Amino acid sequence: MDPRVAELHHRAALRPDVIPLAGGLPADDLMPRVALAAVLSEVAQSRDALQYGWPEGLQSVRDWIAGRLVARGVVIDPEHVIVTAGAQQALSLVAAELAHGSRIAVGAATYPAALAAFASTGLEIVDEDRDARAHYVIAGVANPQGVDLIEAQRTNLIASGAEIVVDEAYAELRFDGELPRPLAIDAPDRVWHVGTISKTLAPGLRIGWLVAPARRRAAVLERKQASDLQTCSLSQVALTRLFGVIDYDAMLARARRRYAARADRLIAALAHYTPELRFREPEGGFSLWVETDEHGDDIALLRAAIEAGVSLDPGHMFRPPGVIAPVAFRLSFSNAPPDSFEEAARRLAAALAAWRHLE
Amino acid sequence: MDPRVAELHHRAALRPDVIPLAGGLPADDLMPRVALAAVLSEVAQSRDALQYGWPEGLQSVRDWIAGRLVARGVVIDPEHVIVTAGAQQALSLVAAELAHGSRIAVGAATYPAALAAFASTGLEIVDEDRDARAHYVIAGVANPQGVDLIEAQRTNLIASGAEIVVDEAYAELRFDGELPRPLAIDAPDRVWHVGTISKTLAPGLRIGWLVAPARRRAAVLERKQASDLQTCSLSQVALTRLFGVIDYDAMLARARRRYAARADRLIAALAHYTPELRFREPEGGFSLWVETDEHGDDIALLRAAIEAGVSLDPGHMFRPPGVIAPVAFRLSFSNAPPDSFEEAARRLAAALAAWRHLE
Repeated sequence: MDPRVAELHHRAALRPDVIPLAGGLPADDLMPRVALAAVLSEVAQSRDALQYGWPEGLQSVRDWIAGRLVARGVVIDPEHVIVTAGAQQALSLVAAELAHGSRIAVGAATYPAALAAFASTGLEIVDEDRDARAHYVIAGVANPQGVDLIEAQRTNLIASGAEIVVDEAYAELRFDGELPRPLAIDAPDRVWHVGTISKTLAPGLRIGWLVAPARRRAAVLERKQASDLQTCSLSQVALTRLFGVIDYDAMLARARRRYAARADRLIAALAHYTPELRFREPEGGFSLWVETDEHGDDIALLRAAIEAGVSLDPGHMFRPPGVIAPVAFRLSFSNAPPDSFEEAARRLAAALAAWRHLE
Repeated sequence: MDPRVAELHHRAALRPDVIPLAGGLPADDLMPRVALAAVLSEVAQSRDALQYGWPEGLQSVRDWIAGRLVARGVVIDPEHVIVTAGAQQALSLVAAELAHGSRIAVGAATYPAALAAFASTGLEIVDEDRDARAHYVIAGVANPQGVDLIEAQRTNLIASGAEIVVDEAYAELRFDGELPRPLAIDAPDRVWHVGTISKTLAPGLRIGWLVAPARRRAAVLERKQASDLQTCSLSQVALTRLFGVIDYDAMLARARRRYAARADRLIAALAHYTPELRFREPEGGFSLWVETDEHGDDIALLRAAIEAGVSLDPGHMFRPPGVIAPVAFRLSFSNAPPDSFEEAARRLAAALAAWRHLE
């Protein structure tokens, strides 16, 4: 991440008066704390929770992941799943497996930490290239755009013959509850399927998963083991037991309703205070992606926003190298108190005015 | 890891009749389960335990790590510490930061997963080379040798000008309780200091740390973030609270006594049943390193051992590429029931006889 942005976000996080519209954080008040507390009080008795485990992950977690994919039509065995430290580790493992220097197309704006993972292993990142060796797509709800961006290119993606890295971080959080058809059904030999419970349950557990194309599984498992031996045992056992006491699908339905309501609240506040801002109404996920026609320094905008008492994610973080675009920014409605949105929008209007004055 | 060994170990783990002398596992019965259970029942109430955190780790964990290093004479701030997913992630981050293709000297036998981490980023691994760009050393108690191997080369290491990757996984588990002098005191600009609570507390928490040379800190933190965003929040909060209720140093003292007693039991059993085996008496840690004068297939030896009802780690796993050596193997006394050692030694004698017959 841009160290200037990291420093500003660190500083803003220390100020309780700053309304946090930065960061794609799930709502603290949606996490199943009571169920987790009950489960956690017993996991220390489990040998599996404290001792070393296998690099591929706990069988019970792999069973759960595979079961949900099978229910969506993917042909998969639990043995094909690697439990990773969040979706991020899955992305970084894939990045290392794709040939050094090969080109990956990611679109005009995408998840910043995916860009970091791809860059860290020497991939050449481009926005669009029909002949790219690999494509990175975020299924169901794209980040930061908040809408589906795959359906329009699905046929071409499948026909392309390229490797496809499919990130389902937000797929279960479409407000309409429609799950996207997994690309792994149509191109199983070229799809790297990535998922996580970070957006739906608790990112602090650091549980995600990777299903690699069959011929790449052995190599990527070896790389997983070289990276960190195995994913956190404590989290894996806690998660397994949690699934025994909560209804995950009911939880998802509740989360979708809650996030949709928060999105509505933020949109209403923005319509009032910053009617000039342009964004697509989100179909799910945590955020709005605001695009302007103004060129300028979005770090200065972040600084002005924090000064005014609201944080946001500057758009350049989401841009692949070489993409020059007007200023954009992401506003997350997911974890700030909805009652603060009106004030947040008012402060944002003030910040934009101050920033335009500077520019 | 060698997939043949992985498969044999997986199969052996499913057989309760096989006495496990393979794997460097800490004793299940030394883990502070009661204290952890008390702590874990409350961590779900902590926002920090379930939500995203910073890539560098929780301040409280960094404070604890830095505090212990300062007490040993290292000049360090908590801000210099990155909390990693075990020592393994620290090693893999260092491996990626050392220039691709540069030569790292590791000795004639070393920790297999370190070899895997170094190989995965394209380092050239050699046993000895005074002009190597980097050296990997295991402080206090070398794995698999079970004895200190640094003191004899300390002066040369410091004078070499090379980067030094110092792995302290077993440093607090010398039976004499003597902590090695941290190389970071003498070569702070070239030492990558790696530590963990995996051997002393619970590997399933996946908590380790990396202190990088000052000029490399920013780059390695960026790589940590690209790798998995951050280390497990749940484990970091649990560990912080655990330190509030246990006496870590008293726990270490108890563990050292216990492992020393187990080492004695295994040595006595081996003296009786396999008096021909040659190994150095361990100064700490979890294992004995047995070296023979026989050349042959140590996978066949592992197979014969499992057949006879005892597991072990075949020596070739510990060898850097290109090292041809007589058959060796590692026997871990750390987590098998000491009452089983006599039977384990008897079975090992039978396995060696069967294997010699095969060869």
